[in-house]
Amino acid sequence: MTADAEVVGLIAVCKARAGLEEATRDVLLPTVPWALAKPGCVRYVLHVDRNKPAEFVFYEIWADQAALDAHWASPEFKTLVARLDGLLVERATVTLLQTIA
Amino acid sequence: MTADAEVVGLIAVCKARAGLEEATRDVLLPTVPWALAKPGCVRYVLHVDRNKPAEFVFYEIWADQAALDAHWASPEFKTLVARLDGLLVERATVTLLQTIA
Repeated sequence: MTADAEVVGLIAVCKARAGLEEATRDVLLPTVPWALAKPGCVRYVLHVDRNKPAEFVFYEIWADQAALDAHWASPEFKTLVARLDGLLVERATVTLLQTIA
Repeated sequence: MTADAEVVGLIAVCKARAGLEEATRDVLLPTVPWALAKPGCVRYVLHVDRNKPAEFVFYEIWADQAALDAHWASPEFKTLVARLDGLLVERATVTLLQTIA
């Protein structure tokens, strides 16, 4: 029972600066419907860490690397990254995943 | 657009000892159908970190805390933890998540 090797999973953690948690959330939340509408976006879920309310965690599944690359290369994503620069402690940490089952 | 506050998300990272990656995978893989059959298990996906092949990453969604607690309290889960003790570098790290969207 092995998942499709093409599929790319991803966990991204965005750490908001103190006092900017709500502002960060307001920037991240609209990306959900926007990303889900993109070709090859299979799953795109925004969470907050229950024990660290300043840490927002994305879980994403993309049909293949090309779909993820297109997402990252899109003007909207670059705008998002620029906006987050003023809100986050550091650049988002990204863990790339291979789905097994 | 806020998800149900009851729902509990979870990311667990299991770091296999050197040379025990396959053995760890063989123990973790059967937990997928077994967990998905449990009441309140909404999503339960096993991945491996594409850049750290010794790190296995679970993404789980449970209907509520009670369902997750029952999972953790089950004899099968305790057996799993005991088996993993001999395979992992350290106990699995667990990040509890609140789904936002």
